[in-house]
Amino acid sequence: MTIDKSKELKTSIQLVNQKLHFEGKADGNNPVSIDYTPPLGDNLGYTSLELFLLSLSSCTGSALLVILRKMEKNIDFFEVISNGYRRAEHPTGFNKINIQVNLKSGNISSQDMTKAIDLIKDICPVLSMLDAKIKVVIEFKIAV
Amino acid sequence: MTIDKSKELKTSIQLVNQKLHFEGKADGNNPVSIDYTPPLGDNLGYTSLELFLLSLSSCTGSALLVILRKMEKNIDFFEVISNGYRRAEHPTGFNKINIQVNLKSGNISSQDMTKAIDLIKDICPVLSMLDAKIKVVIEFKIAV
Repeated sequence: MTIDKSKELKTSIQLVNQKLHFEGKADGNNPVSIDYTPPLGDNLGYTSLELFLLSLSSCTGSALLVILRKMEKNIDFFEVISNGYRRAEHPTGFNKINIQVNLKSGNISSQDMTKAIDLIKDICPVLSMLDAKIKVVIEFKIAV
Repeated sequence: MTIDKSKELKTSIQLVNQKLHFEGKADGNNPVSIDYTPPLGDNLGYTSLELFLLSLSSCTGSALLVILRKMEKNIDFFEVISNGYRRAEHPTGFNKINIQVNLKSGNISSQDMTKAIDLIKDICPVLSMLDAKIKVVIEFKIAV
């Protein structure tokens, strides 16, 4: 069944061993291997928190690209490195997330990036779902 | 460089076309293809919101498995189907998420599952990072 992704998204995961190794799927994409660190898991795939960072950084990155392109900027290289720092006590979610955007462009200034980063808060769905107590820092480096 | 995943997680994504197609990576796992729906993207991979659901459902599922095993329960089959429903206005994050756990076991009762679901709120990191305004409903079906 096809679903309208502008309204609803669907995923499934299935346990594939006797510990915490899952195979995850959505909409015909290649399955994603998901696991946890030893001793509970066997490190056979992405952890849930890594998938969370991939979700947040791709949402942030995509929103930035859409805005920069609307500003008629060229992008020759674009990557996002994310680091999440966990709380020491349960539940051990992130209390701080650093998002580092590295890009290459002939016509993007620091002011353009600061403006674009300010605008993504209104359009990035994943960012909007985070508890306000989590500190998210977005930094950037522009190469020519 | 190896990082201590109990304290810090790290991911990277790199743009691989002129639209919104990214390749995502963490800790030597197989790269994950990430993209957005047309016209902005080309549907060449998981959307950020699908990765978000995979993150949340694997975290929820793993926490449940850990608790059920501590209760000395057998699990012969375990899957988690998640549906996220987006807000109509920007930012179009989920305002409701349904998590359906389907499992097969000879010794798990509905009461056991209700108890386990109640306990995961204290140990699932991803669940703990969500804004409280997002409604998360966890349901289950037990087959023998």
